[in-house]
Amino acid sequence: MSVNPNASIEISALKWAPDFAHGLVRDLRVRWALEEAGLDYRVRLLGSPRSSDYVQEQPFDQVPCFSDGQVKIFESGAIVQYIGERSEALLPQEPQGKYRAIQWAYAALNSVEPAILNVFAVTVFHADQQWAKLRRADAEDFARLKLKRLSDWLDEKRWLEGNRFTIGDLLMVTVLRFLGHTDIVAEFPNLAAYQKRGEARPGFQRALNDQLTVFAANQPQAEPQAAAA
Amino acid sequence: MSVNPNASIEISALKWAPDFAHGLVRDLRVRWALEEAGLDYRVRLLGSPRSSDYVQEQPFDQVPCFSDGQVKIFESGAIVQYIGERSEALLPQEPQGKYRAIQWAYAALNSVEPAILNVFAVTVFHADQQWAKLRRADAEDFARLKLKRLSDWLDEKRWLEGNRFTIGDLLMVTVLRFLGHTDIVAEFPNLAAYQKRGEARPGFQRALNDQLTVFAANQPQAEPQAAAA
Repeated sequence: MSVNPNASIEISALKWAPDFAHGLVRDLRVRWALEEAGLDYRVRLLGSPRSSDYVQEQPFDQVPCFSDGQVKIFESGAIVQYIGERSEALLPQEPQGKYRAIQWAYAALNSVEPAILNVFAVTVFHADQQWAKLRRADAEDFARLKLKRLSDWLDEKRWLEGNRFTIGDLLMVTVLRFLGHTDIVAEFPNLAAYQKRGEARPGFQRALNDQLTVFAANQPQAEPQAAAA
Repeated sequence: MSVNPNASIEISALKWAPDFAHGLVRDLRVRWALEEAGLDYRVRLLGSPRSSDYVQEQPFDQVPCFSDGQVKIFESGAIVQYIGERSEALLPQEPQGKYRAIQWAYAALNSVEPAILNVFAVTVFHADQQWAKLRRADAEDFARLKLKRLSDWLDEKRWLEGNRFTIGDLLMVTVLRFLGHTDIVAEFPNLAAYQKRGEARPGFQRALNDQLTVFAANQPQAEPQAAAA
């Protein structure tokens, strides 16, 4: 449950990312899952630009990748699920509980995240563009609609399926974080409390700290990157 | 491997959808997976508006839901994966092959579909809006970037992981179909051929036909819907 250069599990992560991406880059999800599962891991840091070979491992040229000597995969959702299969702390073994959790993993990444990333696009990436200004209100309202559905489902439950934290909660909490620069989640008090409960878990705190420590150590201002990096 | 009112597996689907959604509504994915797995299923058709109870089963008020007496879940990605676990025709059993396929399922829905649905948004849903006109070229270019990555990976392979069709291919082909009203996939001949290979499978053809037959039978023009439906 910590970063260990001799661990058999290896993940890829960015050496550095711009401020807006701190605490959002997707290796966070995998670090968090490994913490919850109590598994040590080592980190292969990727500089910028990445080696042109990297797309052989990750066709979309993103992080993270994962390997443990048995399996070599990419896509944070799939990696988190794979780690879940190795730990009841993340994924029940009986079929109904297991697939309820997996269903929420897909829901986080396919039914909720796209709406939230479209808000991120119009408020961060493309905020200055005319189309983004015209689109903003409707993009926010569409995200609100998804959050309303999620809030209604969550109701007074602790986690999405009741009292047990799963990979579905882990991914959903990381998805909600993409609205951290807005007040939109706060409009749904039970969702805001749910996000806080997730972020208060010791495993999340360690994962976040480990990601941020890498970025801080590799700030371009503090240490100019050589072109050969 | 066909619709059977006495089957133990039940999926939900729409009684009718507008023309642009024909062959795209996500029950198609589940029907196709069931065909590939050789499993009979029955269909619960939902009218419009849906019963307010439906969100107890599907919090986002979408189709499909799935139940087989053992497991009750939603999210087409999760359902297709669950069916895959019951059939080697869709998902290898050994861990590396299994998780390479699952990784592509997540990649289809989280790394590719959002870019493609944003093209769908500016060319179909919101085509008349000013922001969509301003956004269109960049949205298409971003989708092209994803398709270029996918095309480079696919290269001359038959399926994403070689000679064996999996749930990753099933989902990726249904994602590419959201660009069917454009010529963008055709810019990548190996991807266009890949999509055609998927759509030529007898299971896909039966699934598509079964979805379209329902819509044709429930065209509002042919048979006005009673308000009580």
